[in-house]
Amino acid sequence: MSISNEADLPPNLSCLKTIDTLLRCPICFDFLNISMMTQCSHNFCSLCIRKFLSYKLLCPVCNTPMTEQDLRNNRILDDIVQSFQTARQQLSQANFDSPPISPKT
Amino acid sequence: MSISNEADLPPNLSCLKTIDTLLRCPICFDFLNISMMTQCSHNFCSLCIRKFLSYKLLCPVCNTPMTEQDLRNNRILDDIVQSFQTARQQLSQANFDSPPISPKT
Ligand SMILES: [Zn+2]
Ligand SMILES: [Zn+2]
Ligand SMILES: [Zn+2]
Ligand SMILES: [Zn+2]
Repeated sequence: MSISNEADLPPNLSCLKTIDTLLRCPICFDFLNISMMTQCSHNFCSLCIRKFLSYKLLCPVCNTPMTEQDLRNNRILDDIVQSFQTARQQLSQANFDSPPISPKT
Repeated sequence: MSISNEADLPPNLSCLKTIDTLLRCPICFDFLNISMMTQCSHNFCSLCIRKFLSYKLLCPVCNTPMTEQDLRNNRILDDIVQSFQTARQQLSQANFDSPPISPKT
């Protein structure tokens, strides 16, 4: 996941910013990794929300009381994260006519 | 939703095809409209799945027994559908240098 996690959207791809933001975990701000959805429809990485629930039995976003048993896999988000990262990379490359600057010329 | 439901991705945006497919309802093949997720992690338009469940109490994708009470709003998908449609339109326009052909010249 580390390759394209940076906010590296070129200006001509700024329209992808909203999707980028939606696909990030509200706890770690990285792309969702094994997405779990709460009953209140909020999504987190599986590890992030389980760690959080070991301290407080609340949704970190809206404070609705909850337990680990209320979590449901939101698998489609994992697929969207993967496709989004691929698409973003391809679009970034397609939009730069010149080859990337190499550290040693 | 009718504006950009057609498979109108220009060749240079073909990398968005996977996301496009993921965001469509397996019942009506249109973009998900008020997304509902089953316990088995499958997503449908609210109306499509409710209509289906009035005939059979099964998930239409994987045949897991279920009822309407098992459905959970998958709100993030509604937001992603909206952002995706906007982004796709902006990218399509940005990628066409020439103005669209008008029916009457
Ligand atoms: Zn996280
Ligand atoms: Zn919540
Ligand atoms: Zn539908
Ligand atoms: Zn299913």
